[in-house]
Amino acid sequence: MTQQSAGAAGTDADPVEVAVAIDVGGTAMKCAVVDGAGTVRHTERHDTDADRGPDAVVAAIGDVAAGLADTARARGLTPRAVGLVVPGVVDEVRRVAGYSANIGWRDVPFGELIDARTGLTTALGHDVRAGAVAEARLGAGAGSDNVLFVAIGTGIAAGHVLSGVPYPGAHGAPSELGHVQVVCTDGPRCGCGRYGCLEAVASASAVARRYGEAGGDRVAAAEVVRRAVAGEERAGRVWRQTIELLADGLITAIRLLDPEVIVLGGGLAEAGAALLDPLHAAIMERLAFQTMPRLVAAALGDQAGCIGAALLALDRFHAGFAVGSATGT
Amino acid sequence: MTQQSAGAAGTDADPVEVAVAIDVGGTAMKCAVVDGAGTVRHTERHDTDADRGPDAVVAAIGDVAAGLADTARARGLTPRAVGLVVPGVVDEVRRVAGYSANIGWRDVPFGELIDARTGLTTALGHDVRAGAVAEARLGAGAGSDNVLFVAIGTGIAAGHVLSGVPYPGAHGAPSELGHVQVVCTDGPRCGCGRYGCLEAVASASAVARRYGEAGGDRVAAAEVVRRAVAGEERAGRVWRQTIELLADGLITAIRLLDPEVIVLGGGLAEAGAALLDPLHAAIMERLAFQTMPRLVAAALGDQAGCIGAALLALDRFHAGFAVGSATGT
Repeated sequence: MTQQSAGAAGTDADPVEVAVAIDVGGTAMKCAVVDGAGTVRHTERHDTDADRGPDAVVAAIGDVAAGLADTARARGLTPRAVGLVVPGVVDEVRRVAGYSANIGWRDVPFGELIDARTGLTTALGHDVRAGAVAEARLGAGAGSDNVLFVAIGTGIAAGHVLSGVPYPGAHGAPSELGHVQVVCTDGPRCGCGRYGCLEAVASASAVARRYGEAGGDRVAAAEVVRRAVAGEERAGRVWRQTIELLADGLITAIRLLDPEVIVLGGGLAEAGAALLDPLHAAIMERLAFQTMPRLVAAALGDQAGCIGAALLALDRFHAGFAVGSATGT
Repeated sequence: MTQQSAGAAGTDADPVEVAVAIDVGGTAMKCAVVDGAGTVRHTERHDTDADRGPDAVVAAIGDVAAGLADTARARGLTPRAVGLVVPGVVDEVRRVAGYSANIGWRDVPFGELIDARTGLTTALGHDVRAGAVAEARLGAGAGSDNVLFVAIGTGIAAGHVLSGVPYPGAHGAPSELGHVQVVCTDGPRCGCGRYGCLEAVASASAVARRYGEAGGDRVAAAEVVRRAVAGEERAGRVWRQTIELLADGLITAIRLLDPEVIVLGGGLAEAGAALLDPLHAAIMERLAFQTMPRLVAAALGDQAGCIGAALLALDRFHAGFAVGSATGT
């Protein structure tokens, strides 16, 4: 299945430089053509079809990238680079996707593969860290050099952006806020194999599960929040506990990172003030001697990953990387 | 009280550039003259005498700095800058010491004061973050661009050094590992006002206190470790629990920072293998999908703060900062 939609057209006389951007998730690939100001010129969406196996998915990504570049050219835009962002363990420097549990690939040299398929230099990034870059430069964190982006959805993932660049960690797995332990004993088992991780108790899926365990019917987290705001006692209890758990996780991030801004994204952040107001108060209670960061909702929604992928791609092009080059010229 | 000791003399024909370094603690000021390779050419130690009040301490620091510069010159060395490191909240960029609970000062513009007193440009730093810089560049973390230094003494403090420079945080209070909560309920109250902070249960002073609470006599943490190694059951219990608590704190730091090396310093790290071996194993148990950093003992002992102060000072001089200049030339 493929959906296409046209954004603003490239009508300038000068060639408009764009990046081709692909945000690969377990279910869908969100694709876009994005210019240097972050404006989305074109979008497409393709099913990932992870069932067909990792080799087929990798080949499909190459086809989609080449097709997007052709589409951009057909609209008078000038594609300069490809930005591909994927989940899991990602080595941005070597441009290799190490491992994704959802898609099943291991050590895919996407940089070289997509360079060769498209003739454009390719930046490989981590999906959440790329979204963090977009929010830090163009979204809710714009104007700050020190932004922690936290995506609260099926899981909880984060990216820390310093001076516009994602902090990469020493081994490609930093900012794992979802796996900070916030329940010391008898917490539920997390997908990582440990107990009491933040994402096992405070992600959107955990909120829905805990509402069910409390005797509620089977509804999504957004409905639990709606019912809590409407005054339902059971939903209110589950939601208040979620706020406390998120505050426990975020105060730990504040202790170690001292960010200027925390941007909350992902599905649960669509709760808006029902999340931000009590969470702000709960963090303030835990703050002690530290300074409260600004706590804001994400501005770019589910386009953050694509826009971030485009920014990383254009950074790479402007740093002088050419097709197949391991280092800048 | 003042102690002086001579290190290697400056016997080269070329002038040897040195920094004057002062590491101010609640009890003593450790002072040194240090060259660009980190070699300590001269040391002094003065009582801080915090009882005389913050103004007198600030004046004494200026006198000590001027005296050290004179001593360096008298030995044929060429002092280029002063490095002053202090505890508490420190704004390295504005060169202002915000607050120290131990000494009692507030908002002291040390940079300007010591520039004027000595005629040398002055770098102001945070004591633990400066020690982290020294360990990262010249000590146990040498060769790595991503070093987390953790000092376990009366409290627990940390500094994260990226590419040789301390990560400053957005508000001057990053890497507060000592105040990460590791005991969820009924933990002891920490000096920060919160409960269950790592330093309230796993610092050297907490180990001694917990040994007493377990029915042991009043001895220092080092003796508790010695008795644990010798097979005393009570000390063994206290020490094993300390290892688990430290592992809980460090795994949280690994989740968020993904460091390449963790350097353990402070008094408790003198336990050596009795600390490092079981702590390594306890972190491995918690590691899940992440990569184990190297875990090593600090190499520079209680000179790390002074050497780090000197490195920050020489960085400032070589970046072109002159006396009284807020920015490089």
